[in-house]
Amino acid sequence: MRKEYLMTAGPTPVPPSVRAKEAEPIIHHRTKEFREIFVRVSEKLKPIFKTQNVVLTFTSSGTGAMEGAVSNLLSRGEKAIVIKAGKFSERWAEICEAYGVEVIPIEVEWGEVASPVELEEKLKKHPETKVVFTTLCETSTGTVFPIKEYGEILQNKDDTLLVVDAISGLGACDIEVDKWGVDVCVSGSQKALMLPPGLAFASVNEKTWKMVERSNLPKYYFDFKKAKKSLLEKKETPYTPGISLIVALDEALDLLNEEGIDSILKRHAKLGKATREAVRAIGLEVFSKHPANAVTAVKVPKGIDGKLLTDTMFYKYGVKVAGGQAHLKGKIFRIAHLGYMREFDVITAISALEIALKDLGYPVKLGEGVKAAEEVFSTSG
Amino acid sequence: MRKEYLMTAGPTPVPPSVRAKEAEPIIHHRTKEFREIFVRVSEKLKPIFKTQNVVLTFTSSGTGAMEGAVSNLLSRGEKAIVIKAGKFSERWAEICEAYGVEVIPIEVEWGEVASPVELEEKLKKHPETKVVFTTLCETSTGTVFPIKEYGEILQNKDDTLLVVDAISGLGACDIEVDKWGVDVCVSGSQKALMLPPGLAFASVNEKTWKMVERSNLPKYYFDFKKAKKSLLEKKETPYTPGISLIVALDEALDLLNEEGIDSILKRHAKLGKATREAVRAIGLEVFSKHPANAVTAVKVPKGIDGKLLTDTMFYKYGVKVAGGQAHLKGKIFRIAHLGYMREFDVITAISALEIALKDLGYPVKLGEGVKAAEEVFSTSG
Repeated sequence: MRKEYLMTAGPTPVPPSVRAKEAEPIIHHRTKEFREIFVRVSEKLKPIFKTQNVVLTFTSSGTGAMEGAVSNLLSRGEKAIVIKAGKFSERWAEICEAYGVEVIPIEVEWGEVASPVELEEKLKKHPETKVVFTTLCETSTGTVFPIKEYGEILQNKDDTLLVVDAISGLGACDIEVDKWGVDVCVSGSQKALMLPPGLAFASVNEKTWKMVERSNLPKYYFDFKKAKKSLLEKKETPYTPGISLIVALDEALDLLNEEGIDSILKRHAKLGKATREAVRAIGLEVFSKHPANAVTAVKVPKGIDGKLLTDTMFYKYGVKVAGGQAHLKGKIFRIAHLGYMREFDVITAISALEIALKDLGYPVKLGEGVKAAEEVFSTSG
Repeated sequence: MRKEYLMTAGPTPVPPSVRAKEAEPIIHHRTKEFREIFVRVSEKLKPIFKTQNVVLTFTSSGTGAMEGAVSNLLSRGEKAIVIKAGKFSERWAEICEAYGVEVIPIEVEWGEVASPVELEEKLKKHPETKVVFTTLCETSTGTVFPIKEYGEILQNKDDTLLVVDAISGLGACDIEVDKWGVDVCVSGSQKALMLPPGLAFASVNEKTWKMVERSNLPKYYFDFKKAKKSLLEKKETPYTPGISLIVALDEALDLLNEEGIDSILKRHAKLGKATREAVRAIGLEVFSKHPANAVTAVKVPKGIDGKLLTDTMFYKYGVKVAGGQAHLKGKIFRIAHLGYMREFDVITAISALEIALKDLGYPVKLGEGVKAAEEVFSTSG
C-alpha cells in the first residue's frame, strides 16, 4: 500500500472537493449553465490576480498563454527585453525567437534576480523596447523577482509593456497586478490554483489592448482579442474549453476566495520560511539569493548524489520533490509548498529529507529540521 | 431532480470509470509512472487512427492541433486547398489566413461534399498546392466526406499533403489513416474518445515530416517536431500536459480497444441509421446529402421555431441536442450519436423530439420515430 505525497511546484495536490467536481458528468459549453460558471470563474480570478481587468482563460499549459503574450503584443522584428534567470524565464526568449522578435537579454546567474537598476539601464539603451518579459517566481531556482520595482521603472513608459509569467508564483508570492503596473500577468491551473494542469490564464489591461491592435504576428488559438470578445459578448470561449477543469476551477476559487488572497499569501510565506529554516537547521544551503514562497531550492550537499537523494525520497518514502533542471541537474532539489498545502506537508517533506539523507550516509541529526519548522509554526512564539 | 441527457457532438458523455480516473489524485508528469501511461496511450491511439505512425498529444482544444497542422507544414505565401463546406472546414481557411498561407477554396454548399473530381481539377489548376485541408465529419452539417477518394487523388503527388480534421469523426466514421494516405489526421478528446475536452491529437506520417523540415511559419506550443522528439526520446510532453485527462484517456482507450475500432464503427453506423430512419418516420428531413454516423442534422419543419424546439427538448425534458450554426441557426438541429452511446440514447433523443414537436403543435404521430429506430435495432429482422 503505497502512499504518495506530491511536493512539486506543478502539478500540486488537488483538494478532494475539486476532484469531485472534475468527475461530475460533463455539461455542454454552449449553455446558460456553463456560461454562468465561465463568467463566475472569470470574475473570481480577479481578486487572486489583484486586478480589475479582464482575465482570459485558455485550454492549454501555461506555456500557451506565454506564447499568446508574445504573438498578441508584438510584431516581427520588434525588440523585447527578457530577464533570463532560469529555465522558465528563458522560455520567454525562445518564444520571442520563434516569432522573429528580437530579444535583448538581461542575463542573470540562476538563483539571482536582475536588479531594477539593470533593467532601467537596459531600457535607456534600448528605448524602442516594446515589452519586458519577466517572471514572478522562477520555478527552476525557487527565486522571486522584484516585480513591483520593475513596474515602477516602466510606469512612465507609454510604449513599453511589463509582462509577467506568474505561472508558479500567482497565489503564493504577492503580485498586485493593477497597482504595480503589470500589463499582462500569465498563470496556469496546476499551481496555487490547486487544479490539474490544462488551463492557462492571462490578465490584460487597457494599455496592452492598444499594443494588441498593432501586433501583426500570426495567432489563432491563443488570440487575445477573440478570447476577450467571446468572454464579454457571449460569455463563452471561442473554442471548446476544458469544461471539467473550468467546473472544478469554480470550486477551487471558492476555496481560495474564502481563505482570501492575503491569508493565502501569509500561509505560503510561513510555509516557505519554515522550509528554509528547516533545511538550514539540517545543515543545507538554500540555493536562491531571493527565495520564493512557492518553492524552495536547496543545494545538494557535497558527497551526496542529487538524483539518488530525490529518488530515495520518492521511491522509498513516497515523497515527490523535484530535482534541478538543465545545469542544476543533480546540484539542487526543490521542495514545493504551493497550493493545497499546510504545516504538515512541510513537516512530511523535511522529515523525508532527513531520513533519506541519513539513509545515504549524510551526517544529519534526525529531527533537527522538523524542529526548526515546528518553531516557525508554533504560535507560542 | 433534473436529469440531463447530453446528445451533442462534443462534449459527449464520459463513462463513469473514465470520470473516476480523472478524479484520482494527480501524479507528477516527470515520473516513470506517468511516462509509462503516456507511452501506453500514444500506442493505444494508433488502432483508433488505423495508423502505424506517431500520434502526438497536445493539451488544448482540437483547434490547437489544427493550428499546428498549418504552422508546422507550411511556409508564408504557400498555397493550400481548403474544402469549405461548413463551420469547421472554414476554420482551416481562417487559420491559414492568420498565418499568411494562400487559401485556394473549394466552396461547397453546406450539407454537400466536394466530389473527388472537383478536387482533382483544382489540383491540376494549382499543382503547386502544398496541402489539402479537409474534414472527415463536418459537425455543423452532419456530413461525412469521401476521404478515401481524396487520398487516391493525392497518392501520387509527392509534394502535396492530405490533412484531415477528424475531430468529431474519428471513432464514429471510418478513416484508415495509413491505407488511405492521410498524412496528418487531427482529433480531439471530447468526441468518440469519450473524454472531457482538453486534449488534441495529430497523427503524422513520414511524408509530412519532410514538409515540416522546410516549414518556416512560427510555432512554439504546437511544435510537432518538439512533441515527437519529446515523446520518442523522453516519453514526455515538452510542456506540462493535462495529466488528469491523459490518465483518464488510458481508461477510455481500454474501453474502446476492448470493443475494437471496427465494432465501434458498426455501432455508430447502426445508431446513425436508426436516427435517420426515425426522423424520417416522424416526417422530418435529414439535412445532409451525405449523412455522417457521428451526428445527424435535421431540418426544422415549417411552422416550428428551431430555437424553441431545442430549448423545449433541453429545458423542459433535459435532452440536450445542438441547434444550427451560422446561417443554419434555427433551420436545423443536430442529434449526436457519438462516443459513449447505445440504442437507448437514440430512443431517448427521438422520444424527446416527438414529445417536444407535439408540445409545439406540430402534427406528429407519437411513437412513430421510436418505432422506426427500434426496427433498426431489433436483430429479428
